[in-house]
Amino acid sequence: MKVVVTGARGYLGSALVAALGASGCDVIATDRDDGDIADPAHVRRLFESPVDRVFHLAGIVSGAAETDWDLGRRVNLDASLLLLDRCRAQARRGGPIVRVIHASSIAVFGTPLPERIDDDTEPRPTLSYGTTKRIVELLLADLARRDEVDGRALRLSGVVVRPPLANGALSAFNSDVIREPLAGRAYVCPVGPDATIWVASKRTTIANLLRFADIDGAALGVQRAVTAPALAVSIGEIVAALGRVDSAAPARVRFAPDPRIEAQFGRWPRDASFARAESLGLVHDSSIEAIIREHASTRS
Amino acid sequence: MKVVVTGARGYLGSALVAALGASGCDVIATDRDDGDIADPAHVRRLFESPVDRVFHLAGIVSGAAETDWDLGRRVNLDASLLLLDRCRAQARRGGPIVRVIHASSIAVFGTPLPERIDDDTEPRPTLSYGTTKRIVELLLADLARRDEVDGRALRLSGVVVRPPLANGALSAFNSDVIREPLAGRAYVCPVGPDATIWVASKRTTIANLLRFADIDGAALGVQRAVTAPALAVSIGEIVAALGRVDSAAPARVRFAPDPRIEAQFGRWPRDASFARAESLGLVHDSSIEAIIREHASTRS
Repeated sequence: MKVVVTGARGYLGSALVAALGASGCDVIATDRDDGDIADPAHVRRLFESPVDRVFHLAGIVSGAAETDWDLGRRVNLDASLLLLDRCRAQARRGGPIVRVIHASSIAVFGTPLPERIDDDTEPRPTLSYGTTKRIVELLLADLARRDEVDGRALRLSGVVVRPPLANGALSAFNSDVIREPLAGRAYVCPVGPDATIWVASKRTTIANLLRFADIDGAALGVQRAVTAPALAVSIGEIVAALGRVDSAAPARVRFAPDPRIEAQFGRWPRDASFARAESLGLVHDSSIEAIIREHASTRS
Repeated sequence: MKVVVTGARGYLGSALVAALGASGCDVIATDRDDGDIADPAHVRRLFESPVDRVFHLAGIVSGAAETDWDLGRRVNLDASLLLLDRCRAQARRGGPIVRVIHASSIAVFGTPLPERIDDDTEPRPTLSYGTTKRIVELLLADLARRDEVDGRALRLSGVVVRPPLANGALSAFNSDVIREPLAGRAYVCPVGPDATIWVASKRTTIANLLRFADIDGAALGVQRAVTAPALAVSIGEIVAALGRVDSAAPARVRFAPDPRIEAQFGRWPRDASFARAESLGLVHDSSIEAIIREHASTRS
């Protein structure tokens, strides 16, 4: 099975490429260092031999897409359209219908965030990042309905604990607040202890992406966007869990809440249902403490 | 005030151009006979001098966009992106922020149609036409939030009584069922007498587009898509109203319902609220009989 992975050198992408390679797939990994995903010639090269699946992880994240709308549009929208064009062209030439697994985001839900989010919650994005994610979800659903692309989108929450790479994500605090105190460094958190976020570990996210990719298109039906299970935790709970792993860590956290960051990234409801994802076999982490302990063990 | 109208030779476009011209606007009217709206050079020419408003009416409608996805994508999505790019470029060069009035459609609501539609109903398009309309709504909201384009979208219902131009609209029966029997011709209706549709007259629709264009952006806030008021009527009620205008007309209608047409175009709920539009000063027709009488009077 030939599988294309975009954003393949990223935090998730590199782990996904390793997992796919271990399972015997012929993986075509691409990232910005080997080609521009918004360049038609580059995308055409990825499809020189028939492609079975595409994990489309490449993206310009929240803060960067706000700062440079054109770049966000180019990578998050134009490149996705190019990829879908190539998939359609392959099917039209009699090749296999490509299964496209799009890494969407809970950023499709905008502010003010609702008191409850479940599978019936309407996506109303209020950032350009979430807007382009929602647009690609709509395109995938339309092309799946037409049997031109077997598209599906998994809405990912914050994946923790990311390395301190500055990729422009305004939600980066969700990893920073764990990594920095555990590493012995002081950390100023841009949301208060009552702020609630949705998180998942890298291990769980990769397992869910692989599981999601194996689901038969008929089982998905017309609703092609699924919100991945996540843990809803407050920053205060994260700091308390940090203390159970390293008693000196909590004292290294100081709070300087930014109302704009809190509104978009710190008001995720505890009242959340991931029923559809769970019915499809997707899973969530057991606890934030387990995520922190796993991070601490791989770090040392 | 310089106003660009796309789709300017269409049923709505030509009436809109006339109304704008009568009110003293400098109207740049464009349609497929004078240039390709998806051609960057053509769109650039429309913006040679600063543009204040764009009424974006050009579109490939439901049936045609289903048959030729690439054409629908090109006109409904790519051309809209081009227009928005030009608007943004004008603002970046210090020119006026363009007010873009997009003719969206109730096709953003997909099947199965809900039992009630109001301003909180989630758009879940199930045709490519509605999908691209929804995508442009999302882009307009994002660019309005960023103060780059003063975008707004008015979701139009079926506008009756259209001339018998084959533009590929699967909802064309809503006009045919009025025009044909009144003209003395037999008509086979693809939905049954119990089918319910949403309609508005051309006169009301033009008035609403003009009113909608005059609303201050601040009054619209972040929700930039508004469902225009419409009359919910059954085909049986339309035929009965026909009989009050021309007693011989009802006998000319025969029914041969097509379940697929009925599902998308004949199940519009009677339980509908257009509260937001009404609060913004938009109006609906008094009755289907009034629409039919006006059509009959202009025809003779």
